[in-house]
Amino acid sequence: MSLSVAVAGASGYAGGEVLRLLAAHPEFTVTTVTAHSNAGQPLLAVQPHLRSLSHLTLVDTTPENLAGHDIVFLALPHGKSGEITSKLGDDTLVIDCGADHRLVSEADWADFYGGDYFGAWPYGLPELVLAGGGRQRAALVGARRIAVPGCNVTAISLGLAPGIRAGVIEPEDIVAVLAVGPSGAGKSLRTDLLASEMLGSASAYAVGGSHRHTPEIRQNLAAAGGVGVTISFTPMLVPMSRGILATSTARLAPGVSPTDVRSAFEIAYADEPFVHLLPAGQFPRTADTLGANTALIGLAVDEVARRVVTVTALDNLVKGTAGAAIQSANIALGLPEQLGLTTNGVAP
Amino acid sequence: MSLSVAVAGASGYAGGEVLRLLAAHPEFTVTTVTAHSNAGQPLLAVQPHLRSLSHLTLVDTTPENLAGHDIVFLALPHGKSGEITSKLGDDTLVIDCGADHRLVSEADWADFYGGDYFGAWPYGLPELVLAGGGRQRAALVGARRIAVPGCNVTAISLGLAPGIRAGVIEPEDIVAVLAVGPSGAGKSLRTDLLASEMLGSASAYAVGGSHRHTPEIRQNLAAAGGVGVTISFTPMLVPMSRGILATSTARLAPGVSPTDVRSAFEIAYADEPFVHLLPAGQFPRTADTLGANTALIGLAVDEVARRVVTVTALDNLVKGTAGAAIQSANIALGLPEQLGLTTNGVAP
Amino acid sequence: MSLSVAVAGASGYAGGEVLRLLAAHPEFTVTTVTAHSNAGQPLLAVQPHLRSLSHLTLVDTTPENLAGHDIVFLALPHGKSGEITSKLGDDTLVIDCGADHRLVSEADWADFYGGDYFGAWPYGLPELVLAGGGRQRAALVGARRIAVPGCNVTAISLGLAPGIRAGVIEPEDIVAVLAVGPSGAGKSLRTDLLASEMLGSASAYAVGGSHRHTPEIRQNLAAAGGVGVTISFTPMLVPMSRGILATSTARLAPGVSPTDVRSAFEIAYADEPFVHLLPAGQFPRTADTLGANTALIGLAVDEVARRVVTVTALDNLVKGTAGAAIQSANIALGLPEQLGLTTNGVAP
Amino acid sequence: MSLSVAVAGASGYAGGEVLRLLAAHPEFTVTTVTAHSNAGQPLLAVQPHLRSLSHLTLVDTTPENLAGHDIVFLALPHGKSGEITSKLGDDTLVIDCGADHRLVSEADWADFYGGDYFGAWPYGLPELVLAGGGRQRAALVGARRIAVPGCNVTAISLGLAPGIRAGVIEPEDIVAVLAVGPSGAGKSLRTDLLASEMLGSASAYAVGGSHRHTPEIRQNLAAAGGVGVTISFTPMLVPMSRGILATSTARLAPGVSPTDVRSAFEIAYADEPFVHLLPAGQFPRTADTLGANTALIGLAVDEVARRVVTVTALDNLVKGTAGAAIQSANIALGLPEQLGLTTNGVAP
Repeated sequence: MSLSVAVAGASGYAGGEVLRLLAAHPEFTVTTVTAHSNAGQPLLAVQPHLRSLSHLTLVDTTPENLAGHDIVFLALPHGKSGEITSKLGDDTLVIDCGADHRLVSEADWADFYGGDYFGAWPYGLPELVLAGGGRQRAALVGARRIAVPGCNVTAISLGLAPGIRAGVIEPEDIVAVLAVGPSGAGKSLRTDLLASEMLGSASAYAVGGSHRHTPEIRQNLAAAGGVGVTISFTPMLVPMSRGILATSTARLAPGVSPTDVRSAFEIAYADEPFVHLLPAGQFPRTADTLGANTALIGLAVDEVARRVVTVTALDNLVKGTAGAAIQSANIALGLPEQLGLTTNGVAP
Repeated sequence: MSLSVAVAGASGYAGGEVLRLLAAHPEFTVTTVTAHSNAGQPLLAVQPHLRSLSHLTLVDTTPENLAGHDIVFLALPHGKSGEITSKLGDDTLVIDCGADHRLVSEADWADFYGGDYFGAWPYGLPELVLAGGGRQRAALVGARRIAVPGCNVTAISLGLAPGIRAGVIEPEDIVAVLAVGPSGAGKSLRTDLLASEMLGSASAYAVGGSHRHTPEIRQNLAAAGGVGVTISFTPMLVPMSRGILATSTARLAPGVSPTDVRSAFEIAYADEPFVHLLPAGQFPRTADTLGANTALIGLAVDEVARRVVTVTALDNLVKGTAGAAIQSANIALGLPEQLGLTTNGVAP
Repeated sequence: MSLSVAVAGASGYAGGEVLRLLAAHPEFTVTTVTAHSNAGQPLLAVQPHLRSLSHLTLVDTTPENLAGHDIVFLALPHGKSGEITSKLGDDTLVIDCGADHRLVSEADWADFYGGDYFGAWPYGLPELVLAGGGRQRAALVGARRIAVPGCNVTAISLGLAPGIRAGVIEPEDIVAVLAVGPSGAGKSLRTDLLASEMLGSASAYAVGGSHRHTPEIRQNLAAAGGVGVTISFTPMLVPMSRGILATSTARLAPGVSPTDVRSAFEIAYADEPFVHLLPAGQFPRTADTLGANTALIGLAVDEVARRVVTVTALDNLVKGTAGAAIQSANIALGLPEQLGLTTNGVAP
Repeated sequence: MSLSVAVAGASGYAGGEVLRLLAAHPEFTVTTVTAHSNAGQPLLAVQPHLRSLSHLTLVDTTPENLAGHDIVFLALPHGKSGEITSKLGDDTLVIDCGADHRLVSEADWADFYGGDYFGAWPYGLPELVLAGGGRQRAALVGARRIAVPGCNVTAISLGLAPGIRAGVIEPEDIVAVLAVGPSGAGKSLRTDLLASEMLGSASAYAVGGSHRHTPEIRQNLAAAGGVGVTISFTPMLVPMSRGILATSTARLAPGVSPTDVRSAFEIAYADEPFVHLLPAGQFPRTADTLGANTALIGLAVDEVARRVVTVTALDNLVKGTAGAAIQSANIALGLPEQLGLTTNGVAP
């Protein structure tokens, strides 16, 4: 089997990473790459690291160019995927790396995004533990439309959902603070994203609940069984190109022991190929996940402060975006879930 | 007036930074620099950036070598300052950059440090607002022993104390997560502090309440009026040599408006030369404080999550250590508080 | 004495650094700061690290706004300084940080820059050794127009001129390769200057003799006595916000010993406050010059390859630009050359 | 076919990278990993990024533990491989990532290394063009002992050998300056390799011809046909964990045109899967090769300075070490040369 694949938005960081992973996938063949202002250029001119795809040339991002493929990956700015997808066939597998189809609540959608094409698709976070006891994975089997989660959302959700599901942490008053690299902001020409500004410096943005990922985190933790979830979420930009280190904390539920907490996470991830709970006393570094579809979680219980703290490391462009997209495609198509994906980071 | 100064532990990062600031101070003259294994070497051999002090040679860290100066700065490992200070005259101003004399509670001391020389000294965080309405500054006037705060402690305390003092945030269930550079860990030969390990990577340490700075933060917030302070505190090592970006969050007190919160911080820092509250919607970056004795604070109120979030940036080696030491010395001696200190960071 | 100062181009990196240094200068008072698109904003909005200048507001870069000051520093794009200066009085000291007035050769000017306002000004590299035995410093005394050298030019010229002057190295076939930070490229919104692109990566640009600094280097080495100077010069962008590390190599002249070479450099810089030759076997790191007006030079003679190699470290924004500007202003005005400038770097 | 593999020195950076690549190789199975001080620990304890090898435990580096495998990769300190290899069977393929078996000249060996086990093995740089017109590849077919080149050596040799072979550049007076990351120095606990020292800073080392890679470069360029090769070679440590950017320059031979030069490199690498000449005007960045077995070369001819300049980017741990080892093993064993290796870098 070799399935034909198109990638829309191939000149950006997310699109480039989808391509890097596709190039290593034994069952997928990239035949079309599209872009906006870079259309007409060889792919290698804008993604010089993708040597094995040197035969590809960027074409315009139009429904016509994207039609006729077995799989279409969308790595487009907000608001673009709805229109394009409406013109693609129902049997085409469409994987959207953007935010257009993640939110179930139309009110949240209107508050944080807005636009013409509201409507949630099956959500591509296979390891998310659900209130009913299953995993989100089941919703992806056979799907032909999949919304890939936000990168920060994945880190926080994986770091808290098992505790919510097991009732060992409280869904109210969650606090998450993340160290994130700038590639999550895309290839945007903004002064604050210049190397001169970021090298040797850390800064925060979207402080105070304004980050668009906030409702999506609440949605996931609600899916895990959290009632009345509230979360304070602050991302801090730090000088590494990739990577998310999410420190997620929640109140320890009454009467729960540290062992109960650890047990909840151990059970949740015991059989997961891509999500690993580290032994007690160990905490991950983002470098260990660079280029890999891996999320590593360290866990501690602060019995004085009565808070559970998890530290989750992942690569925002892989497990946070492109790797989740490939993994979800594998599941949707009935392929082995790990096909074409590595668990080994590029370190040091 | 020119006062003679000795710096003990001059080959480390804290000692080096004390020297860099002293070299720019118009009233202080460094006459003695001491070290342990590097004794006998020219200062420039271990601190090649301190060109203006090329005439100094490191001598052994002994009470004899430190005696007879107007001021002695101690930048020594834990447990060393007590013994040395006991042999220095009472009229010598001794400024300890280490942790030996910070904690008031002997129980906390025993839990987190331990050793022979327990006993708190006047605490060198001049801008700390106190429950009674004054500032910690007053305790430093005329002092001859001063304990410089921990760098993380300074960032979190400055970011929360005005809210505690004003009653606009709750002292219980504080959560602080920091992005910190490795220079705070000193010039230690540890694998995890190697450049190969840290470049491009973030990691957490001392997770779950085990960091030694925890009781000191509680102590400061109690001094600001907090009753029953609890704090979950997690530092994340990120790839910048210096700098702390502290995201500190606390529950909004009932019935308090965002305006009340901002007002509490505005009042607290309106006249401070080194601590600045940024306008609404602005958040600091650490580069803006590099080499400066400045702490910059951004503030937001998340009314959905009911949390106040402050983001504090400072240079761990300056306002976090050596700058606080010089500032405290100025106050103790009745000099202008800003003497020899800059508020301008080296950016970009 | 307090002289009134205007800085044109105050929202860029070079202008910002001129301001940072001016703020520490005891005889200069900044009264006017100008910008192009940022005019009307508080200085602090675009230079948030300059807390001590929070009272200043940016005004338009016009001759009218710049007139009437004792000193005007220009940090403008190429081609802008000529027009403005023609409208400033002859007794105003004008220091141009740009390239418009550096080149003596009109042919070089036309090849590498071009424009309406050709004409060399006294050149602001005081330590440059001249063929006749003096230093460039003499040309600056009493000057009212000064052209500040290019940052790469300063690093290479300081690293080779004493050898040229003494005849211990050959002026033909010089090769210089530099590791440089991106701040030298200014606050330009270019994709290749984004943090995501530069973090963890090195790249070369202007390879093969096309860099505009090439004729200026030749000019300086000719001034040092080099006849028939040729130079291959390649800058490599590396992930540090500031700093230049220049490896400059030249052929060892026949019959010259390593001792002769070292001696030439020792003599040249023995009395210089800002340029230092390191002892044999020692080589500088850029961090030791961060924020300082210092150039550090290490020297080795490769007797097998018959090449002299010097490694020069400096801060491109200080000794490479703004510090040289202040130093030159001090000389022009008869002030102590070191006034307001530090030799101590901010390290680590 | 699945061949059993042992890796000696599996706790270091080179050994770790060999393992990362082996884990992706379809024909090799790692059965033994050895270490010195870390023996007895799970591999994951020292290489936490190698999740897919979590079943392995480190054992002592002894001939007994290494015997009985089809392939043994040695990533050991200098001087260790000779003794071990003498006790392995002649039909075992031994790939040495160290320097013990690279040099043909016993005099060079004695000058730069020394020790008991002198003796060159077939040299693992397949793409090296030879004076006779072939490639070094041929010497590896069927080999059972292979010496992997030094990482800096590979970058410089690939960037100059085609020009030497074609006679378009002169072998005398070559100058090469490299920007290199610290992982090439290994996991050594040295102060100068600490993150605090390296972040934001560049420095040079082994200046003036003292670097051990110097004779190996000369040897390769002689193999390409260079008579009387001399080279000045200077590495500059820059703050990126991996990567080499080598600027290599040589004098343009008389009567040679820029087209001739480009043509020589085009012909040399036209059919190479891992070495690519970029189009005129383009120069590589190291990020494009991160984690990949790719070397990218940009080329310019400076007709004023009469120098050819090539800029070569590669990952010191992959094409510079572990990737070259796997590639050489593939050739030795008659497997497809690209098996298990990617050409796509992890960027941004």
